[in-house]
Amino acid sequence: MPRPQAIATVVSASVLVATSAFSAQKKDRQPNIILFMVDDMGWQDTSVPFWTQRTCLNNTYETPNMQRLADEGVLFTQAYASPISSPSRCSLMTGANAARHRVTNWTFRRDTMTDGTDDRLSPPDWNYNGICQTSGVPNTFVARSFVDILRENGYHTIHCGKAHWGAEHTPGEAPEHFGFEVNIAGHAAGGPATYLSERNFGHDGNGRPTAQFAIPGLRDYWGTGTFLTEALTQEALKALDKAKNYAQPFYLYMSHYAVHVPIDRDPSYFDKYRLKGLSEKEAAYASLIEGMDNSLGQILAWLDRNGERDNTIVIFMSDNGGYCTSTEWRDEPLYTQNAPLRCGKGSLLEGGIREPLIVRWPGTAQPHSRCDSYLCIEDFFPTILEMAQVGRYRAPQTIDGRSFVPLIKGKADGSAKRPLIWNYPHIWGNTGPGIDLNCAIRLGDWKLIYYYKTGISELYNIRTDISEQHNLAAQQPKIVRTLARRLGKELRRMKAQRPTDKLTGLPCPWPDEVSK
Amino acid sequence: MPRPQAIATVVSASVLVATSAFSAQKKDRQPNIILFMVDDMGWQDTSVPFWTQRTCLNNTYETPNMQRLADEGVLFTQAYASPISSPSRCSLMTGANAARHRVTNWTFRRDTMTDGTDDRLSPPDWNYNGICQTSGVPNTFVARSFVDILRENGYHTIHCGKAHWGAEHTPGEAPEHFGFEVNIAGHAAGGPATYLSERNFGHDGNGRPTAQFAIPGLRDYWGTGTFLTEALTQEALKALDKAKNYAQPFYLYMSHYAVHVPIDRDPSYFDKYRLKGLSEKEAAYASLIEGMDNSLGQILAWLDRNGERDNTIVIFMSDNGGYCTSTEWRDEPLYTQNAPLRCGKGSLLEGGIREPLIVRWPGTAQPHSRCDSYLCIEDFFPTILEMAQVGRYRAPQTIDGRSFVPLIKGKADGSAKRPLIWNYPHIWGNTGPGIDLNCAIRLGDWKLIYYYKTGISELYNIRTDISEQHNLAAQQPKIVRTLARRLGKELRRMKAQRPTDKLTGLPCPWPDEVSK
Repeated sequence: MPRPQAIATVVSASVLVATSAFSAQKKDRQPNIILFMVDDMGWQDTSVPFWTQRTCLNNTYETPNMQRLADEGVLFTQAYASPISSPSRCSLMTGANAARHRVTNWTFRRDTMTDGTDDRLSPPDWNYNGICQTSGVPNTFVARSFVDILRENGYHTIHCGKAHWGAEHTPGEAPEHFGFEVNIAGHAAGGPATYLSERNFGHDGNGRPTAQFAIPGLRDYWGTGTFLTEALTQEALKALDKAKNYAQPFYLYMSHYAVHVPIDRDPSYFDKYRLKGLSEKEAAYASLIEGMDNSLGQILAWLDRNGERDNTIVIFMSDNGGYCTSTEWRDEPLYTQNAPLRCGKGSLLEGGIREPLIVRWPGTAQPHSRCDSYLCIEDFFPTILEMAQVGRYRAPQTIDGRSFVPLIKGKADGSAKRPLIWNYPHIWGNTGPGIDLNCAIRLGDWKLIYYYKTGISELYNIRTDISEQHNLAAQQPKIVRTLARRLGKELRRMKAQRPTDKLTGLPCPWPDEVSK
Repeated sequence: MPRPQAIATVVSASVLVATSAFSAQKKDRQPNIILFMVDDMGWQDTSVPFWTQRTCLNNTYETPNMQRLADEGVLFTQAYASPISSPSRCSLMTGANAARHRVTNWTFRRDTMTDGTDDRLSPPDWNYNGICQTSGVPNTFVARSFVDILRENGYHTIHCGKAHWGAEHTPGEAPEHFGFEVNIAGHAAGGPATYLSERNFGHDGNGRPTAQFAIPGLRDYWGTGTFLTEALTQEALKALDKAKNYAQPFYLYMSHYAVHVPIDRDPSYFDKYRLKGLSEKEAAYASLIEGMDNSLGQILAWLDRNGERDNTIVIFMSDNGGYCTSTEWRDEPLYTQNAPLRCGKGSLLEGGIREPLIVRWPGTAQPHSRCDSYLCIEDFFPTILEMAQVGRYRAPQTIDGRSFVPLIKGKADGSAKRPLIWNYPHIWGNTGPGIDLNCAIRLGDWKLIYYYKTGISELYNIRTDISEQHNLAAQQPKIVRTLARRLGKELRRMKAQRPTDKLTGLPCPWPDEVSK
């Protein structure tokens, strides 16, 4: 049932049928597509209300350009991603659910797990080398990216910012290996060493990296006082200026390192938030947010200035919930930074997985509209290909996502009957509510979170209890059983991985194998 | 007849059949392929004798690593290219003859012809924007590169050095747009601003280009005293070190800017040649040659060191004849710099088009062997795809080239009955013998050069008169007629372009339309 449409997915045939940019009959003018992806941005880190009511956080942060986008497009109130970066981004690129692609934790060093330790459970042998377009590298998920398919179908493809799809020294480390023709500052790392050009984005004066997350490729900005977010924006605009001449539609993946830690102060906005009464830490965070929003504004202005507004689809998204688990970067009380959602990054509670999604598609999306249907990050793959009018393509992986173009168009869909699945059989390192070796299912209004270590399930009614304060598992054993069965079935179908009990050497039970 | 083999060439079908890296059954281990391309290097700019006897030039230049390659592979004495860079490189990438792809002169600025002026003739409206993988840009030849096909078939693809396939601000300006996953220092320009890192390869201290041929992407070497050839080599070796981890075969296009003007002194070798008695200009030229050869040596050593020697095909080639037309860079007498060949770069005489080609293919090419069959630059496209075991592929262009893998294997072939065709309906700017608006055919031992302006043809027997000192046109009118007819037929078949007479507005006659 979660394979809703006839999507071309071919695994092993040696001769394939393909359409191609070189040969396909001329399509209607293909739209430009911009995916504006923010890192670690929470659902409430904006002045745009994604909930039914404005919140304190909406009044704190200032994101006028997101507001403009929402005024001109459709806002999704229930868009989901994985609780941390690599799983989300690998699902984005491949259309596969994280349970299937098994890049279920964050990647960085080759052949190196990033898991924390637990006294009772061991994590599975997951794909810590990330995704890869070719086979032969151990612990990778071999898949073709939608970007490569866009490129084959005539798109000029631009990567700007964070990549984080594959470990260092694997083919997946570089955006160019996934079909991007331009790569600005993307590599294996999942965060920035620093946002400060005064620190050469993590290099010494001789150009040697001084930090593991040193940002490549922005040397022209070293020592200039240009904040990372602005440097990326300037480079993206240069790439768009070039793209203008190419007589091709473009795909721009504007993938900000913001607002990932370290939460440096964006000097253009920091003082304003201090004057508003925010602490130094919170003012810094708010300044990162507004700097990111300013980048969005510059890109929208570029489209206006160059007559490309009406032929460009702009998608705004984040990859996981806002950071909320350490006082090193955020003020107490912890786990409240995404309120009304509970907890944040790393958690399978709503704070960790619900994202601010907006789509502006002139002539197709109703301006100033909202959509409450839920969808998930793996849906972007078929959605973007449908936007690009790509009907058939080759890819070795199974596509779990389904296109949400019907939702963008305001058409009814059956998504409430579709389960969304998460699997996080890992120890992230940071702790908090819903951050543990666990998996989850959303089906209709209900969400079940199952903890591998304890065998315990929590049940929430998301519609009536968005803050997940009321665990209804004891009151609704039938719903627990139904959802646990469905979750177990879906996980097994996708060949999901489980942690192992160190004592017994056995894998933890599936959610439907316990009686709790 | 010049379409010798059943090569998959599909022009307009909208649904195509393709093999793919994602799905093809596992092939025998595909070899790595290195194409080591030197710019403007003449047939005699080496200590390796490509002629039947050693020459004075062979004794002047020192290229021990080319000698090693020749000792371990097959040396081709009659490998041809176009007389200048862009036509050769576009034929290399597309497999199309220059008469077909119409990038018949050198490219640089978008929408700008680079032709000199002539009082009587106008050049045609050629493809001065170069080649392009997508349609929509005026004055381009739309084609798919063999590099893109290699990439689709599992190769990791690395560009290092000069590109020169498409004009600035067109998609063809960037190697990444032709399937290269790594691009080191390649762009639209056909030469280097300077070889000197002391001059930041053509940039000021703020990173701004100070010359139109400023070299991109080597900032780490600015001010370090690293000569351009060495900087490119170091970057290529870094890319190979990375490629080692990728579990993919690699294609490295090691495309030196050397030995294009400006003929800067490579300090590692200059003094030696001065001590050998060469003038400053000639010692500088010899130092560029040996620096290039040293780069080859470093790459061969990398293969040895990494156990990749036996699984790597190394191809050495140049893109046109040695520069010989100005005392700004070379000593007098001019037009002798490729002796025994006459003239050099820009000319359809042998000095302009005959190239030093060596192929080392362990287990396939007989060590220390020679091949006297002729072949041409467009043959590289099908040859390299055959080396990579790529049987079928999609490409919109017609492939004029034929694989010379049989020649590498020492098998007899029918190349002596195959015509090679050149078309240069342009005013280059520099002058000299055989440099004029002209076209040519090689068939068997004979070569006919036809001049559009005068309608006159020259006829040479290349086997007995490699220096083209004896124009036999008057003595052999029948051979002239036969070759002129064939040349005219082939040019028309490929839809070649001709200059126009400014007075009459009519195109110049084809070679078989004049009675001279």
